[in-house]
Amino acid sequence: MYNAKAFSAASATSPLASTQIARRDPTDTDVQIEIVFCGICHSDLHQVRNEWSGVMPTVYPCVPGHEIVGRVTKVGSGVKKFKVGDIAAVGCMVDSDGTCPNCKEGLEQFCPNLTLTYNFPDKHTGGVTYGGYSDSIVVDQRFVLKVPSNLDLAGAAPLLCAGITTFSPLHHWGVTKGKKVGIVGLGGLGHMGVKFAHALGAHVVLFTTSPGKKDDALRLGADEVVISKNADEMAKHAGSFDFILDAVSADHDINALLGLLRRDGNLTLVGAPEKPFPVSAFNLIFARRSLSGSLIGGIAETQEMLDFCGKHNITADVEVIPIQKVNEAYERLLKADVKYRFSIDMASLKGA
Amino acid sequence: MYNAKAFSAASATSPLASTQIARRDPTDTDVQIEIVFCGICHSDLHQVRNEWSGVMPTVYPCVPGHEIVGRVTKVGSGVKKFKVGDIAAVGCMVDSDGTCPNCKEGLEQFCPNLTLTYNFPDKHTGGVTYGGYSDSIVVDQRFVLKVPSNLDLAGAAPLLCAGITTFSPLHHWGVTKGKKVGIVGLGGLGHMGVKFAHALGAHVVLFTTSPGKKDDALRLGADEVVISKNADEMAKHAGSFDFILDAVSADHDINALLGLLRRDGNLTLVGAPEKPFPVSAFNLIFARRSLSGSLIGGIAETQEMLDFCGKHNITADVEVIPIQKVNEAYERLLKADVKYRFSIDMASLKGA
Repeated sequence: MYNAKAFSAASATSPLASTQIARRDPTDTDVQIEIVFCGICHSDLHQVRNEWSGVMPTVYPCVPGHEIVGRVTKVGSGVKKFKVGDIAAVGCMVDSDGTCPNCKEGLEQFCPNLTLTYNFPDKHTGGVTYGGYSDSIVVDQRFVLKVPSNLDLAGAAPLLCAGITTFSPLHHWGVTKGKKVGIVGLGGLGHMGVKFAHALGAHVVLFTTSPGKKDDALRLGADEVVISKNADEMAKHAGSFDFILDAVSADHDINALLGLLRRDGNLTLVGAPEKPFPVSAFNLIFARRSLSGSLIGGIAETQEMLDFCGKHNITADVEVIPIQKVNEAYERLLKADVKYRFSIDMASLKGA
Repeated sequence: MYNAKAFSAASATSPLASTQIARRDPTDTDVQIEIVFCGICHSDLHQVRNEWSGVMPTVYPCVPGHEIVGRVTKVGSGVKKFKVGDIAAVGCMVDSDGTCPNCKEGLEQFCPNLTLTYNFPDKHTGGVTYGGYSDSIVVDQRFVLKVPSNLDLAGAAPLLCAGITTFSPLHHWGVTKGKKVGIVGLGGLGHMGVKFAHALGAHVVLFTTSPGKKDDALRLGADEVVISKNADEMAKHAGSFDFILDAVSADHDINALLGLLRRDGNLTLVGAPEKPFPVSAFNLIFARRSLSGSLIGGIAETQEMLDFCGKHNITADVEVIPIQKVNEAYERLLKADVKYRFSIDMASLKGA
């Protein structure tokens, strides 16, 4: 074991503050990474404030962060894929059983014995896992990704959650050139959805409630922007979408969106409204539409996404902050006051 | 034009009664059929009582019936597929444009210019189409199906709506041997779902709120019966179903059913709850499940379904009634007091 610097919350109402945590020494199959950037995901805020107490109560101190990029500083003797100095990344998962049907199909995110990157029982330390708001992390090589060398690291960090969460459903539901694709919401997830759908060759329509986001959406790759509260604008697109990726977690009218799908079209939710939302059966039946959910993505697919980003030079639009501004960033996150992801420059932790 | 005997409703509150209607003389591409049996679908009742006034207001007199089997009595000069004396069938549709993408893919049920079998503008007569509660019908050959000779005709009639409505989604979602399939509700649709899923080789679980239906479900082909109000019984099946066909139109807990699907599992609605129902996004996201709807089936698939029924000797379980009991049958239908479909013996119309 060794000590790592980190930012942690001591309770649901405490601000994040500088601390030291124990990390394991790398085992034969581990990769030790010096963290260079860590994105801020809304999940971090939910976990730190114990807003998921019903399903995933927070163990304090809590070190969040699962959008991690950095440099490899040590590898175990059994590690072949990585060497010291490589740029590597870690996302939402750090372990799984490797033997269940989900793992065997490369869909570790559905493994019943999954270990999430933070606030999950850590079989090595006996405590809980600590995430990426830290100067280093030690992760089994199976859960470490390679980052294409052309990518800006600050913007690459959010690919590990916001990126794969949006890439996976676009991929799974067959978005390609010639398809008409809707992206609902232009936030951390939505802006990645627009970039990916555009790079995949689709005709991309961004749905937003904010007219002010139109120019930015077009710049990011949208072909059209629809103000979703404008019924006339919505009606023009009735029955025309092959696929809609809904990245909004606030309550909104999902039936109005379902009606925009063509026959056999699919709407996938990646933002999860907290309360059950009403669905009209007729919207599904009269065009054989489907409504789905999607959860991050498997490790192989995450690597595929990163390679795709390398090829198309895609990163998240980020605002880089020092770790000392993380509490302020959380408050801004609640107001959606960021374009479109905060990325923490972990060099700032050295002085913390 | 010629006169046909029929049973029609004169208003939303009138009982069905004997009448005469005008049918067109067969054109070159038409098939004239002497109707032998016509099933009673719940849609008939909705239409007769104008319960769909918002979307499909009823034009009176209304002659319902879209589960039609009979004998060919005349064919047009251009008809090659049928000859006088053949056993033929007609379902929910009698025409479509034949040129739209849906028609070209054999999915006429989604054609924007579809003509339904009753209460739809009739381009031949200038009035509305009249359904199968009649001694004869004239239909374009494209919408006439062949009935395998081994099938009991009274039980074959409901295949044309209840049959195809349940067969199509089982088929579309890839139900085969080795799959675990749930059927929700043991009524006109559900009992066909059980028979088809069983014949397709699936492990079939029937969900019902009525313990009294257990023996019948097992007889029809279910491997297990789950009382859906029993949370313990439901919990035993969590995350285990490949596919669930939901044939219940009354309000019920669709989230509880979604939770029974395994990863990538699908629940398809064929019964449509009138009001929007609540869906929990988490139920979809955490196992990449999907929720869909399905609407009858195309003509090619309907023929495939009938051929499948011929091969497996599948018909609906019916209670045969004379047309004079149709109003009484409607009242019993409202109480689900039929096992599992009424089939009208049209010979009874001769004396009406």
